[in-house]
Amino acid sequence: MQDDPLPSWQDTATRAAIVAFVEAAAGDGAGHVAPQERVAVFDNDGTLWCEKPIPIQLDFVLRRFAAMAQDNPALRGRQPWKAAREHDGAWLSGALVKHYDGDDADLRLLLGGVLEAFGEMTVDAYAEEVAAFLATASHPSLKRPYRACAFRPMVELLRYLEGHGFATYIASGGDRDFMRPAAEALYAIPRERVIGSSFALRYDAPTGSGGAGGAVVYKRGLDFLDDGPEKPVRIWSRVGRRPLVAVGNSNGDVPMLEFAGGAELPALRLVLRHDDAEREFAYDDGAEQVLARVARGAQDGWHAISMRDDWADVFGDAPGPS
Amino acid sequence: MQDDPLPSWQDTATRAAIVAFVEAAAGDGAGHVAPQERVAVFDNDGTLWCEKPIPIQLDFVLRRFAAMAQDNPALRGRQPWKAAREHDGAWLSGALVKHYDGDDADLRLLLGGVLEAFGEMTVDAYAEEVAAFLATASHPSLKRPYRACAFRPMVELLRYLEGHGFATYIASGGDRDFMRPAAEALYAIPRERVIGSSFALRYDAPTGSGGAGGAVVYKRGLDFLDDGPEKPVRIWSRVGRRPLVAVGNSNGDVPMLEFAGGAELPALRLVLRHDDAEREFAYDDGAEQVLARVARGAQDGWHAISMRDDWADVFGDAPGPS
Repeated sequence: MQDDPLPSWQDTATRAAIVAFVEAAAGDGAGHVAPQERVAVFDNDGTLWCEKPIPIQLDFVLRRFAAMAQDNPALRGRQPWKAAREHDGAWLSGALVKHYDGDDADLRLLLGGVLEAFGEMTVDAYAEEVAAFLATASHPSLKRPYRACAFRPMVELLRYLEGHGFATYIASGGDRDFMRPAAEALYAIPRERVIGSSFALRYDAPTGSGGAGGAVVYKRGLDFLDDGPEKPVRIWSRVGRRPLVAVGNSNGDVPMLEFAGGAELPALRLVLRHDDAEREFAYDDGAEQVLARVARGAQDGWHAISMRDDWADVFGDAPGPS
Repeated sequence: MQDDPLPSWQDTATRAAIVAFVEAAAGDGAGHVAPQERVAVFDNDGTLWCEKPIPIQLDFVLRRFAAMAQDNPALRGRQPWKAAREHDGAWLSGALVKHYDGDDADLRLLLGGVLEAFGEMTVDAYAEEVAAFLATASHPSLKRPYRACAFRPMVELLRYLEGHGFATYIASGGDRDFMRPAAEALYAIPRERVIGSSFALRYDAPTGSGGAGGAVVYKRGLDFLDDGPEKPVRIWSRVGRRPLVAVGNSNGDVPMLEFAGGAELPALRLVLRHDDAEREFAYDDGAEQVLARVARGAQDGWHAISMRDDWADVFGDAPGPS
């Protein structure tokens, strides 16, 4: 067992399916796939790290809103600053749940607040704020730093895939520039392999006489939301290929999971099921469609990962095999 | 000389400046730059391959327009099909020159024709058409296949940078999905490292019962034109860093060249000057501003590359050193 590349995984049929696919793709026999086609894409929130009770980026944003409302009383009666100041989790989580039901009104209010909070900031200053947040902030109920909220089995899977010649990418609805510092620190995925939603950006030419410098700055607008059918579009735009392996956990991941493989390529489509109230959380909300799809069976490479049954360890706290 | 990594370059001050910068960045002493910061971006048309008398992609598009007008007489009196059918180079090159002067009217007509030609095509079908074109089409006056129109010294420079730990990217106003097959074949740059303009895309879910598949399809619209101040924005979006080395040839490259380096990083900014009517072309049109900038001198890392004086070979035809 000491050479086991997936020590946090139980010896289950799910693990066996993953290993069989990856070994075949990297092998010389049936199922071989050329190295350049070995692309794996991972959703982030709820797939690589914990997304409950609220997505980690939302906590980052709410702290910023609360600080803004502290400085500016006129914001205190307006959403989303009101909810942030009053710790109104119901309004906030409702905005996300309603989005998955097709009602984006509250999500747009929330986004409007985000644009107000970060518009006109340089990308460099934003990256520093994110890094400072990740260095200090903790999960409210798991009582662990956010930087320790990555799922250990998924990090092992990333390394296992890379060890078999796969290029690994994050393809998430989260904000690309928020995820980049986290991806480097928690998953060792470099920033050029992070695909996500993006605020609109502009380039400000240098003002000095040197003729060198200039800055990229967030405009007060969204460029695109990388979720649902936008995920295959953004994966293609960035990678120029279909993924061979796609890993997600929510309804917004269905198109990305479908898009994997192709006429001449196999696919491994993994859906993480949050069914572990003891070690993490148990919930299906926002995942009804993708869970229904994966429940139809393993044809076309669809597999559920049960956090409860397939993972020996969730966050890397359990004593390892001796 | 047999170990010379840049055999197509003359032994000039330009070459010396490039070598000094790259060796310092990769070395342990002054000028060292961490490997992850070693990013090099190259414009494509006129920088990595020939762009005269018309950009190579324009030839691809014009052949498509001519075929469309052949099939559909109603198109023959309309631009851009009229110009394509009548080989009206003045109208076509005028559209590009006027764009650089701030007048986009004819360029928009041209783009409208492009969207008409390729809208609703899948990305896979488009890639096949491009590959077929590159396999057969030839340059009209240089009398060589387009696939032999890459500048050999630039390909050597790409390999030289990569050999010193640089990640090389194309960052061009050209259409990303047109450049990808060319970049692989001519420069050995993989498709995930090609940054360029993009048509708008959508994802079409699979129609069969399998629940796997789906396609990415061009919409009849432009997503963005990756030129001028958009270049730093797109480089940041894709790479998440400023480049350390930027190489271009036209006014649209000025912001990208400025953006290189930073407060704590040096920069190498190279501008290819087309001054070689004998072996390629001699022209400054569309490059007036960038040439004026580089003429101010080598402070801040700006250097001109003279095709005539700095390159021993242009297309790789000259006998190599024995």
